[in-house]
Amino acid sequence: MSTTVIDIPSDSPFGIENLPYCVFSPVGHAPRVGVRVADTVVDLAATLLDPVFAEPTLNAFMAQGLPRWKEVRRQIVDLVTSDISSTAIHPVSEVTLHLPIAVADYVDFYASEHHATNLGRLFRPDDAPLMPNWKHLPVGYHGRSSTVVVSGTDVIRPCGQRKSPENADPDFGPSRRLDIEAELGFVVGTASRMGERIDHDAFAEHVFGVVIVNDWSARDLQSWEYVPLGPHLGKSFATSISPWVVPLLALEAARIDTPIQDPEPLPYLRGQQKWGLDVDLAVEWNGHVVSRPPYAQMYWSPAQMLAHTTVNGAAASTGDLFASGTISGPDKNQRGAFIELTWGGSEPVTVGSETRTFLEDGDTVTISACAPGPGGTRIGFGDVHARILPATPVRR
Amino acid sequence: MSTTVIDIPSDSPFGIENLPYCVFSPVGHAPRVGVRVADTVVDLAATLLDPVFAEPTLNAFMAQGLPRWKEVRRQIVDLVTSDISSTAIHPVSEVTLHLPIAVADYVDFYASEHHATNLGRLFRPDDAPLMPNWKHLPVGYHGRSSTVVVSGTDVIRPCGQRKSPENADPDFGPSRRLDIEAELGFVVGTASRMGERIDHDAFAEHVFGVVIVNDWSARDLQSWEYVPLGPHLGKSFATSISPWVVPLLALEAARIDTPIQDPEPLPYLRGQQKWGLDVDLAVEWNGHVVSRPPYAQMYWSPAQMLAHTTVNGAAASTGDLFASGTISGPDKNQRGAFIELTWGGSEPVTVGSETRTFLEDGDTVTISACAPGPGGTRIGFGDVHARILPATPVRR
Repeated sequence: MSTTVIDIPSDSPFGIENLPYCVFSPVGHAPRVGVRVADTVVDLAATLLDPVFAEPTLNAFMAQGLPRWKEVRRQIVDLVTSDISSTAIHPVSEVTLHLPIAVADYVDFYASEHHATNLGRLFRPDDAPLMPNWKHLPVGYHGRSSTVVVSGTDVIRPCGQRKSPENADPDFGPSRRLDIEAELGFVVGTASRMGERIDHDAFAEHVFGVVIVNDWSARDLQSWEYVPLGPHLGKSFATSISPWVVPLLALEAARIDTPIQDPEPLPYLRGQQKWGLDVDLAVEWNGHVVSRPPYAQMYWSPAQMLAHTTVNGAAASTGDLFASGTISGPDKNQRGAFIELTWGGSEPVTVGSETRTFLEDGDTVTISACAPGPGGTRIGFGDVHARILPATPVRR
Repeated sequence: MSTTVIDIPSDSPFGIENLPYCVFSPVGHAPRVGVRVADTVVDLAATLLDPVFAEPTLNAFMAQGLPRWKEVRRQIVDLVTSDISSTAIHPVSEVTLHLPIAVADYVDFYASEHHATNLGRLFRPDDAPLMPNWKHLPVGYHGRSSTVVVSGTDVIRPCGQRKSPENADPDFGPSRRLDIEAELGFVVGTASRMGERIDHDAFAEHVFGVVIVNDWSARDLQSWEYVPLGPHLGKSFATSISPWVVPLLALEAARIDTPIQDPEPLPYLRGQQKWGLDVDLAVEWNGHVVSRPPYAQMYWSPAQMLAHTTVNGAAASTGDLFASGTISGPDKNQRGAFIELTWGGSEPVTVGSETRTFLEDGDTVTISACAPGPGGTRIGFGDVHARILPATPVRR
């Protein structure tokens, strides 16, 4: 059996400080758990003696809990810093990457003050942009778990009811205001029971890792349907996530304070630990960077989101995904949704030699992210990308 | 091996016209699929040769599709109208009933005009009670799948942020306005793919059966949090369903027209088939009937709800649960939520020798339902019941 040493360039965002997990299939083989090292995927089913790595999702491994997550990280470092069987490593470009988790409940928050303010101005121009509750709790809602898909899956333009201000009634057809939302998503590993609460500072015991999320949004469907029970069809047609789950353990050097929260949140939303995250995102539209949303600017931290979600006794399950909501910074080129970037479609953006307001069929969006790692290293999240396909024809 | 014939009283709501499924465990045995006949549960794992009945949920059986559902119904009628092994039948009172389905996505609608009008008046007294979209589409939102529990599971009073009009800021504590919502829920058997739509008239090919739903609601949490993204913690702590899944095939005689829909809905919400349902519910509070909500009055039909849910290309999954929203009729004693019955707590209702506005610790609520069957028979849904336990103490 031949062995090799994986070559890790010193500037790789996938060095041994990172080690993001995935579910992949080598050519002709069943899906299994892998870990990314430089430009290769290491097959954990073939190298570590635990059947959880032969599963087609990360859930069984995630359910094992924090002490085990730490132990496996140490085992992987040992593995990849010595000789490894050549049959257990695969170039990233030669494997198929799958949805890494079986999604239990999916909750999407609204944690960026800049985004919530922008959307409030656009959707409700006659009212105060932030609702009275916004600075007291991380506002969120449940999304559709079954339409969470892995990066690379094409997104079909949704149809639905559209109502423009000049018409008395809605009509039906393909969305004309198809948009993205650049977000981070947090994956729960360790479950909690109904009636139990997850304290702010127990965040790292429950959350396994982080993905990039593109929460596709049909703004015309959404603006007509969302009162009073929130978004539904405007969001439920597709939510894309990156194939790499970056362990929370890889983000120690990225932990920062959130912006000052005023008024001070209620005690259940406070803790000793910092869970703001210094993650920089980049949004590419047909290959051209149009925005660089800074996660560091998010008002509510993911530890606050999880504490809030469970404070009423709702259980957290292995595979729960909760996302931050659109990440938008204070500057125009930091906005994580096209409705903000183009101010409701009134200020088209330049995309290479063209201009765009909302997505056109054939367009591709790629969202990537990176965070500081220990000792000047970088922690890469890879990317989430997808192409827009035309709407499915209506039969009648 | 001894055999017996099941005695079915002629007025039983669980005759061979009904045959609702459950997941149950006989004393000392693992959960498996059963069917109710009169006051017994017939063990299908022990009587029909298909491993799907040995599963701990109905999902594998439901995924087999309509032709198979019809075939199994015929097999069960053959089975229970002849001698049956005594070891395969169990008195209902001697088995443990489990959550019958693994819930995929859970969507809750808002399909009663009377309920939506009442809640609009209570939550937004200064505005028109129905939003402009309400008569154009069945308004709905995603709920929390992991907190759907079977009848009999205690419900712990949730804590959360409460904000009364007289206070500038919210405080934190146990809900003071804990409520019910009496609903019917529809369980998807046959899945659809992303990008596919389920036509109105394909309803019976996809929906396996019906349960009673109590969508517990903390009105104080809900009224503070729900703008602009809809209900979250006010609903996510518990949703109870009945253990019996009444097959759609048992409800042929209960199918009626919905009330006249004006304006006429868009074409994708229309079909040739009637999917209004003549189901009568009864709500008991500590053993006293306080309301009799009529499902026949619901504005939007479940076939319209499913067509709407999937018209944007969202997939339907085996185990999806979608509920009607509170069933309220035009009369006060037909209202399916206490916030309506007590008009926001201002008009207490008499419950035996006491009065109530919202739920107190130790209260029990039981919601039962019944529909007409063929030839003057009745189709029973059984009930969904639960007791309220005090809030979990807050540690800090």
